Amino acid sequence: MTAAGSGWVTIVGIGPGDEALITPEVTAAIGEATDIVGYIPYVERVGAREGLTLHPSDNRVEIDRSQHALQMASEGKRVIVVSSGDPGVFAMAAAVLEAVEHGEAAWRDLDIRVLPGITAMLAASAACGAPLGHDFCAINLSDNMKPWDLIEKRLRLAAEADFAMAFYNPRSKSRPEGFGKAVKALQEACGDDRPMIFARNVSRPDQTIKIVPLTEVTEDMADMRTVVLLGSSTTRIIERDGAPLIYTPRSVAG
Amino acid sequence: MTAAGSGWVTIVGIGPGDEALITPEVTAAIGEATDIVGYIPYVERVGAREGLTLHPSDNRVEIDRSQHALQMASEGKRVIVVSSGDPGVFAMAAAVLEAVEHGEAAWRDLDIRVLPGITAMLAASAACGAPLGHDFCAINLSDNMKPWDLIEKRLRLAAEADFAMAFYNPRSKSRPEGFGKAVKALQEACGDDRPMIFARNVSRPDQTIKIVPLTEVTEDMADMRTVVLLGSSTTRIIERDGAPLIYTPRSVAG
Repeated sequence: MTAAGSGWVTIVGIGPGDEALITPEVTAAIGEATDIVGYIPYVERVGAREGLTLHPSDNRVEIDRSQHALQMASEGKRVIVVSSGDPGVFAMAAAVLEAVEHGEAAWRDLDIRVLPGITAMLAASAACGAPLGHDFCAINLSDNMKPWDLIEKRLRLAAEADFAMAFYNPRSKSRPEGFGKAVKALQEACGDDRPMIFARNVSRPDQTIKIVPLTEVTEDMADMRTVVLLGSSTTRIIERDGAPLIYTPRSVAG
Repeated sequence: MTAAGSGWVTIVGIGPGDEALITPEVTAAIGEATDIVGYIPYVERVGAREGLTLHPSDNRVEIDRSQHALQMASEGKRVIVVSSGDPGVFAMAAAVLEAVEHGEAAWRDLDIRVLPGITAMLAASAACGAPLGHDFCAINLSDNMKPWDLIEKRLRLAAEADFAMAFYNPRSKSRPEGFGKAVKALQEACGDDRPMIFARNVSRPDQTIKIVPLTEVTEDMADMRTVVLLGSSTTRIIERDGAPLIYTPRSVAG
């Protein structure tokens, strides 16, 4: 077997933060790697060990990072590309495959695998009950890579479909106004006080869960460390002494 | 502390089949349990050990099973309710919370937790690349608990929103015709040959992944062991010597 033939790229998800949410499959793959590629804080989560080279890189260089990973694999390295959450949900798997499609022909013959992880919306949902327990959608609220009009169109259609919803990247310093616009569109389209859930630092020791009626949401409630969920028209809140439980029933009356 | 005060109910997801996809958090919770409640094949996956009582039950008794779990916890038992995949995605978490809301008042004060798992659509997506790499929705195609018209409405709106889509429970012996109707609605609404992905027994040794242009899909391609994915209008197929890679690009042109 040639050096190139022994190389591989495996794109893994290390979950939203708690080490106990990393699957044994991902832990085993990391244990076999020679190189780790990814956004700085995610590479830091993997940590150093003998024989492992860390290649942390900044945000917004996903294609450069992917090309680097593919190039190293073609030279025989065993390369992990690390994402938080699940690599297939608004993360590195699509970026690596985009680099494969538009990159060197030989990259198509590499051993390329994607290993799933616990994505933020499902950790957030679990943390407050089961608000995504019926049909739902997941929307990236960043307009860095798609027009804002398309986001608003999807929000209105998702409300019309009466999906529960999960929103990734709701707000960042470079996009301070988008979340407010999204909330306004949702308030108009939904027309009720269904719960919006702000899960910040989900699964970490400083996790916070805030439940706010959609009618009372303001744009400052989300930041880049928050995943936001929105109930459907049927979502229920169970009040009790501790934190309330939220769920979307499995059934809809005929 | 009273016996009742020491009891708990934890609803866990054990992933789609591969033991290496069970999170350490879930494994630890199962290790502390006195009782396991769930659908027969999922309880079998947990297996027997000293001090653990297994309570397997048949399909379609989700509320009875939930009430049983809550009753045992109120008597001081440490009860795991087991789901495949993620418990919050078309699984037991919403059923248990429905039983809490409509059940004995004391059940609200129980220690009730939900622990996330790897849901089938994300394992299926990873197995073929990243078809859910852009905005997407998840729809349960069973009309056991909602009217068929609502399912068709959601399919048409999801197509209009240009979501990638994941379909759970596409077809069963008691519902042989629904999947064909869903495919017909999607063919009309999408109007192109975007790929539909049939992931059967995902993550198990006998996993199969079939990729079929939507225009050529027939209703017999899915069964109850299949999770079905559908690309958006922008989804790409990377052909190569081995199995093709499928992904939905992160960006949409403005």
